[in-house]
Amino acid sequence: MSATRPLVTLLTDFGEQDDYVGAMKGVILSIAPEVSLVDISHQVRPQNIRQAASILQNVYRYYPAHTIHVVVVDPGVGSQRLPIGLKTTHGTFIAPDNGVLTYVYAKEPDGRAIVLQNARYWLPAPSNTFHGRDIFSPVAAHLAAGVSFDDLGPQLATLTLLPSPPLIVGPHTIKGEVIRIDRFGNALTNIGPLRWIDDHTLELAAEGAAPARIRTDQARVICGWHTVEGIAQNYSQGAVGEPLALVGSSDELEIAVNQGNASEVFAIQPGSAVTLQLL
Amino acid sequence: MSATRPLVTLLTDFGEQDDYVGAMKGVILSIAPEVSLVDISHQVRPQNIRQAASILQNVYRYYPAHTIHVVVVDPGVGSQRLPIGLKTTHGTFIAPDNGVLTYVYAKEPDGRAIVLQNARYWLPAPSNTFHGRDIFSPVAAHLAAGVSFDDLGPQLATLTLLPSPPLIVGPHTIKGEVIRIDRFGNALTNIGPLRWIDDHTLELAAEGAAPARIRTDQARVICGWHTVEGIAQNYSQGAVGEPLALVGSSDELEIAVNQGNASEVFAIQPGSAVTLQLL
Amino acid sequence: MSATRPLVTLLTDFGEQDDYVGAMKGVILSIAPEVSLVDISHQVRPQNIRQAASILQNVYRYYPAHTIHVVVVDPGVGSQRLPIGLKTTHGTFIAPDNGVLTYVYAKEPDGRAIVLQNARYWLPAPSNTFHGRDIFSPVAAHLAAGVSFDDLGPQLATLTLLPSPPLIVGPHTIKGEVIRIDRFGNALTNIGPLRWIDDHTLELAAEGAAPARIRTDQARVICGWHTVEGIAQNYSQGAVGEPLALVGSSDELEIAVNQGNASEVFAIQPGSAVTLQLL
Repeated sequence: MSATRPLVTLLTDFGEQDDYVGAMKGVILSIAPEVSLVDISHQVRPQNIRQAASILQNVYRYYPAHTIHVVVVDPGVGSQRLPIGLKTTHGTFIAPDNGVLTYVYAKEPDGRAIVLQNARYWLPAPSNTFHGRDIFSPVAAHLAAGVSFDDLGPQLATLTLLPSPPLIVGPHTIKGEVIRIDRFGNALTNIGPLRWIDDHTLELAAEGAAPARIRTDQARVICGWHTVEGIAQNYSQGAVGEPLALVGSSDELEIAVNQGNASEVFAIQPGSAVTLQLL
Repeated sequence: MSATRPLVTLLTDFGEQDDYVGAMKGVILSIAPEVSLVDISHQVRPQNIRQAASILQNVYRYYPAHTIHVVVVDPGVGSQRLPIGLKTTHGTFIAPDNGVLTYVYAKEPDGRAIVLQNARYWLPAPSNTFHGRDIFSPVAAHLAAGVSFDDLGPQLATLTLLPSPPLIVGPHTIKGEVIRIDRFGNALTNIGPLRWIDDHTLELAAEGAAPARIRTDQARVICGWHTVEGIAQNYSQGAVGEPLALVGSSDELEIAVNQGNASEVFAIQPGSAVTLQLL
Repeated sequence: MSATRPLVTLLTDFGEQDDYVGAMKGVILSIAPEVSLVDISHQVRPQNIRQAASILQNVYRYYPAHTIHVVVVDPGVGSQRLPIGLKTTHGTFIAPDNGVLTYVYAKEPDGRAIVLQNARYWLPAPSNTFHGRDIFSPVAAHLAAGVSFDDLGPQLATLTLLPSPPLIVGPHTIKGEVIRIDRFGNALTNIGPLRWIDDHTLELAAEGAAPARIRTDQARVICGWHTVEGIAQNYSQGAVGEPLALVGSSDELEIAVNQGNASEVFAIQPGSAVTLQLL
């Protein structure tokens, strides 16, 4: 029984200095007191839908399939954008229909999306400015407490999706971009997924392109102010302060500096171009 | 039974880069292992009692009535200020007697306040610098574990209260001030509570004043560098970057910028004057 | 039974704006759904092993003995540094062998250390860049779910330890240094442990030195730009803005400013020299 204790995660851009997160947690625990709440992050940059989508993509598969993920990065709150639910075999998602579920949906194309239209599961008299508290949290809590997914509202015709950042795979050159800078200054790119074949060979299986083999000692990464020769196995390979390219924890090409801040050293940001040359 | 799983929330100015929050959690879980701990915020600005009081006011009613809220913003720790408990029909509060419970008490005038004098429920040999760990947390945990509220100490004669920021309600002009800037730069004011009568009409039911009707299209808000015509329904009403006045999630007048930072655009801070004119 | 609900704490330098913490929590809850997760801190400065070691030292004894503490400050991830476990009578620790357990081990010399070598308790195909998710979290979860500590791997010969910051105890002068600046700007030093004998007398029982008595009104603390006469009982003793020396919550000498920021006022940082003179 403990294995099916309901689990609700929260991913927002609310920060932690206000009352928003605390109010959401109270709403959920009032409706479904037995829920285990898990904070994924409240430090998404304000209104940065793509950052939230990327974080969500990287974590949801590590959670039990019965987990309910509440995602509130919602610049259009109170406007015509719809509140939606997406049920997949790897978790259920409650979010605004603004693209924040793009990457999850790409991996879970069989997911079923609905509009959270049944006001019976909202708080009474929802505000126009805080659907995280008034719609998304109570809906998630009712779901956790046993309400059927299909009872939350009618089917959604088409999910809003973010455009994909371009990834161009040629025979000798792969061109992508920096997607996210993490707390350490590491630059995570969209060049992937990369899989180790042996200690010196990677396979790139980018969507819509033939799998490419990459010899780590015959690769060159060009990004911002620097060119990096070869792809390393870990951050410590090379001297302290040395720029590195390696395979990040989500199987994408990552640019780092051993015990340093790659974003500053390379002068790169999300959107910066990254080129991987096969020599 | 799961409905009465004890629930303890934490609201502090300790931040999360030190050991303070972790120590409090350990103390609580050692005394009452079955407690569900919920972080409301540890990012109150250091020693900002009013900010904590305002956050607490906005969240406590969303929690189950049996919740115990531990509030530690405590610049007077170790001095003569008393450690207190306040039991209301909407939750029990454990805090220093420095005004941090002002707004809760205003809404819960029937609450009973006591001094946490019974050292049996403290840690042995409490420090002079960290009552969050040595007094407030163990008292909350014993309460969660079943100790009677009245056993914690004797009745408190008078709760310390913060002075209220002035709100002046005239026939054509309402003058208040900015109370708090949230993470998005939105300015939350003390002009409220505001309630929607219909799509174009608000009612202001400020304490000690006759209820006032406000036509949203015949209102003007003056604050800092800007004058805003009308009161909007949500952040998206108007162009990106446009200043807005609207009803915030706690039913107070809020000043915002659609996908921008109102605090910067208006050059306003807590304490800045706000005038609402009825035209 | 509720008293033995498994408890896993997390202490990392991952911050909260990325996916790292959320992924670790998902891994743990997938393997051991009944675990209670507690965040100690994710705001350790990037790769600051000593700060994490110091936080851990100050909190672990407040937790139940069956608690499993996962500590991931791991600049050497993917290199030769070992993943280890340390089982003590006051908790079990899962961490990289880089010195982060130094202060715990100093207090728990009977602890047994092992290498987390049994890959059966890792995630399959662990990455080289994120052992927090791929090794430390699943090992902690399996331990919480009932796996025997000794089954995790073979004994570790020697734990990696950080060098101790010097503390020189003379008959009239004690020389130490600032270890950490907390959120309030208070400077925590390594001069301790200090214990109150009476209202005016402290005993310093530094390791390897004879216990020293200190009259609080015959003491002088020299640090950075300031000299402080006497040792106070709490932050409020003295005027607002006045520099103070007092006994911090971990029984070490602390330098503070009443309602101010000592680090700025004194212009001190971790490593700054602190001298305590007995007059």
